[in-house]
Parts: sequence; C-alpha cells; structure tokens
Amino acid sequence: MKIGLYGYGNLARGVEAAIAKNSDLTLNAVFSRRDPQSVKIATAGVPVVRAADVWDWQEKLDVLVICGGSATDLPEMTPMLAKAFNVVDSYDNHSNIPTHFANVDAAAKKAGTTALISCGWDPGMFSLARLYANCILPDGSDYTFWGRGVSQGHSDAIRRIEGVLDARQYTVPSEEAMARVRSGEKPVLTTREKHRRECYVVAADGADREAIRKQIVEMPAYFADYDTTVEFITMDEMKRNHSELPHGGSVIRTGTTDAGTHQHVIEYALKLDSNPEFTGSVLASFARAVYRMAQRGEHGCKTVFDVAPKDLALLPREELIAHML
Amino acid sequence: MKIGLYGYGNLARGVEAAIAKNSDLTLNAVFSRRDPQSVKIATAGVPVVRAADVWDWQEKLDVLVICGGSATDLPEMTPMLAKAFNVVDSYDNHSNIPTHFANVDAAAKKAGTTALISCGWDPGMFSLARLYANCILPDGSDYTFWGRGVSQGHSDAIRRIEGVLDARQYTVPSEEAMARVRSGEKPVLTTREKHRRECYVVAADGADREAIRKQIVEMPAYFADYDTTVEFITMDEMKRNHSELPHGGSVIRTGTTDAGTHQHVIEYALKLDSNPEFTGSVLASFARAVYRMAQRGEHGCKTVFDVAPKDLALLPREELIAHML
Repeated sequence: MKIGLYGYGNLARGVEAAIAKNSDLTLNAVFSRRDPQSVKIATAGVPVVRAADVWDWQEKLDVLVICGGSATDLPEMTPMLAKAFNVVDSYDNHSNIPTHFANVDAAAKKAGTTALISCGWDPGMFSLARLYANCILPDGSDYTFWGRGVSQGHSDAIRRIEGVLDARQYTVPSEEAMARVRSGEKPVLTTREKHRRECYVVAADGADREAIRKQIVEMPAYFADYDTTVEFITMDEMKRNHSELPHGGSVIRTGTTDAGTHQHVIEYALKLDSNPEFTGSVLASFARAVYRMAQRGEHGCKTVFDVAPKDLALLPREELIAHML
Repeated sequence: MKIGLYGYGNLARGVEAAIAKNSDLTLNAVFSRRDPQSVKIATAGVPVVRAADVWDWQEKLDVLVICGGSATDLPEMTPMLAKAFNVVDSYDNHSNIPTHFANVDAAAKKAGTTALISCGWDPGMFSLARLYANCILPDGSDYTFWGRGVSQGHSDAIRRIEGVLDARQYTVPSEEAMARVRSGEKPVLTTREKHRRECYVVAADGADREAIRKQIVEMPAYFADYDTTVEFITMDEMKRNHSELPHGGSVIRTGTTDAGTHQHVIEYALKLDSNPEFTGSVLASFARAVYRMAQRGEHGCKTVFDVAPKDLALLPREELIAHML
C-alpha cells in the first residue's frame, strides 16, 4: 500500500515511524510547503516533493495522510486533497467536526474517493471507546480524563506571553476524581475537580516572573478554571527533562443494567510515551482500512465509527478469527 | 426490532434486561425446552413457546438471540437456527471457534440470513480490544487478566466432587503481575503468576474436608497450575455472600513505536457486578447490528470484527459524529 505524507512535522514523523512497523505499508512521498531541499526525512530514498506538485502523484499513491493543524490547515487541505486522493486526517476541533465532515464528504463523493477524518486517539480511539460503551450501557454516564501529558496548545499559549522563552504544560488528571468515577458513584465533577495544570516555564533574564505566573493562571479558557502551578526552570532543564511529548488518558463509562443494583465500569486507558508516534500509528492502521474501503467503492467521508475492525488488520480475517477472537 | 430469546437461563435474563434499556428493541417471544407453563419470565405479556415450535416464528422475529451453553448447545443450535433466523450467539470455546464459524457460515449463506457468533465480553469486547491494540501497535505484547469474578465452569467442577453441596470459585488476577505489565516491561508470566483461585465450598455434614480440599487444588487444568485457596462456609453464608455473578478483567497491550525508547500501554478494563447482564447487554447491541446487516443483504457468519461500530448504536450517524466523535 503506497502512502504519501502531506506535511512533515511531529505527527508526520509519527506516521513515518508507524509505516516502518507495518510490512504492507510503504512511504512513497512526502509533500512539504517548505523548500524540499531543506526537509530531511527519516526514511532513506523517499522523495520530498513541493506541496504544490502533489497533483502529479494522483496515480502513484493509494492513501495520502494529511498532517496539518486543525485550526487552519485541515479545513482547507482535506476537502481540497480529497478531490484527487483517498485521505486520512486527524482533525480534532470537536465542535466543528460536523462542518468539516460535510465539506470533506461533498468533495470525496464528487471525486469518488474515500476520506477518513478525525482519526487518532481523541478524537479516534477515545471516540470508539465512548461509542462502544454507550451502546452496551445505554443507562450510564461518560467521563473522559486526559493526561498526564503535554498539551501543545496550552504550551503554545504560555509561549506567547511576553518574557517567556519556552514553556511546557502538563495536563494532570485527578486520581481522586478517577477513583470516584471508577467506584460507580457517577459524580458531577467541575472542570477544576477533574484536571490540574502543571506549567514549566523558561523566563527571559530580567522578566517579571510574578507577572508571567499571574498571566498564566488567570488566562481564560486555558487556565482560569483549573488549579495551575507554575515552575520556572532553566533552558537546560527544559531540554533535559521536558523534551518528550507523553500523553494519555482514560474514557470511563459507568452504568447499570437493572434498576441500579448492578453497576458496571468500562474503562479504556492509554499511557503514551510519544503522543505523535501513537497518533501516527492509529492513522497508519486506519489508512489501511481507507484503502480497502476505497477498493470496495465505499466512497465519501468516513469516521472511525464507519470502519469494521477487521479492515484495520494486516492479518486475513480467518487468522483474526482463529487467534484474536 | 423484534427479538426472540432461545433458552431462558441467566444469560437470556441478561438480554431481557438489556432489551428493556433499549427503546428500539422489543422482546417478542421466549423459546424454552422446558414446559412453557413452568417458565416465568420478567417481561409482562411475552409468550413462552416450546423450542420445537420456533419455526412458526420465522416471519415474526428480526433477530433470535441464542442463549445456550458452548459445550453442547450452541454447536448444534446456531447452525440449525441460522437456517431460518438472523441469530446471535455467545459461543466461547476459543479453540473451536473456526469450526463453529464454518458450520454457521454455511447454514447462514445457504439460507440468506445473518449470524453473529462469539459475542459478549470474552470473546467479544476483549477480542475487539486485542484487535484494535494489535493494529495500532504491531510491535508489542498482549496480556489478558480475568477477574476478580466468578468462574461458573470452575464452580461447577468443584460441585461435582463428592461431599460438596455448593461451591463458588473466584478468579483473581495478580495485582503485581498487572503492575509489571502496565509498566511496559513485557514480562513472561506463568499461569500461576497471573491469577490465583479462591474457592468457597459448602460441604455435606460429615464430609472429609481435607480430601475435598486436596481434590480441588490438585484438579488438572482447572486448579493444579494455580495457587488455590479453599474456604469452607455454611449454606447460609453462601447464599448471603456469594449469590451474585460479578466478573471483569483487563486486556493490556504494550508496545513500542520506535526502536524501543517510546513505550505505549493500551488497556481495556471491565468491572462488572453481573456477568450475565453485561454479556446480555453486549448481545443486545450486536443484535441491532445484525438486523441492519441482514437488511443490507450482508449474509453469512459474522464476528464482532466485521461490525462497523455505528451499526451498534441507536442514535443516527450524524448524532454520533456530532456528540461522540
């Protein structure tokens, strides 16, 4: 299966690493908006091509994995590229997913391509965990906890503050809140009770640290509703202790199957050393499914909810039945 | 959606409870090999019919959920009933699944029906957890832990010992082994290291308790390879403290996405107050999918791996995309 990567940041490198772990997938081209000469990729012998020349590759790729940001890149890129390619993206702006879906669906149906949006772990595997658990336990409550892990959006928000040279923000779920949920008690939890935020900040020489701290902890939407700690560290400490991008979390549904005597807890939990590599691994397996769906003529926009699990697997169905069922 | 139950034991009562929680499902008939007059069911106004008369109901049911045992019932019943009905079963003899699949597939394809086998939580949701995790992390190791929960097979094995009036066996996973697996170290674990077995036994007056204990702990396949504890209790204690059928467990896959630096842990965990009610709830949601697949002409034998998650849901696809993705 011939895969192209559109964009070459952290996520694309994660998909590239995943392709190396799957014997039926090969990386055939990387497309970049940067000067191709300046882009060094991990896989030997694979061309880096100007993004504008992607259209020349229509006959040479089975699936194009689009590795752009959800804020501005993907809403443009995915409908545009679905006009010529089977595509997968990781669009994660939950509230705008229906609009993005409609745009991609129109383009893919018109072109006769298959497009899978909002793939990864949230949205993605966490969405699947929510759906399965809701179908099994219609009488219940959902909880999602994130972390401990680096939130790139929150880290970026801190970096935009004057006097900040670098920053890393960890989202930390409350063990106490998770224990209450797992006990089946169905607590109503405030934002503050579910997660806290740990910030590590490198400040410029002479910067007003107290002013930076105040700007962080009072920042609306990002930090104001949370218990937030700010620790100032050196650039050296940042590089040594905070250069990785771990993440994870848990989707928990608790529910009853009778009048309330019998409680059940379903939990799907991830603990990830590298958020982009894990996300890339999810995208790679769904790229396989997209190609199979396209070959069967199942065109239009799809989500993880539309994919029969067997289509994700390298092994044939008989082997799955014999060894994994 | 009109559901029939073939058999009326613990599992069927679990499916019946699940039907009551799903507004699109109705229970239309219960079929029993016992005298229908002697079978009292929970749902008012639903007929109990002789099993032999099931063929009269071909036009009146959308899906028949077959609630028989895996040892002798289901290998006969499911291929037989798939000749006339869309069916779901919970066949759980892992090593014989390929044979059962082939038999059911032949019957369903010939009749133009849709049959889903080996549904529940293991096989079933645990199989899905294994498959998804294997597809995402091809370079990794699988672990399944069961319990703490009642194993009915092991309880029955104890009950067959002379001098035993009643027995309950709990399978208990090793917290230490689970912690090692979750740490990502990929331990090689013996049977004894993964689970221990707790037995509660009511002995007849004058029975040789030491002989019973010895027969239990040395029983091949069931107990000999485990650390097993046996506690003798009164019939009253049995009824008061061991009348429920809790169960659960965890499917864990750990793997790497690079040369081994980045480890990831995926865990799917269940904690169930009632094994039959939870299993019945899984069967009910897959019965919905079976009916939809049958309506689309997707005939033959299916497993949970073949079912697109959206087909399990009562809510329409657009709502799933808007609210669960």
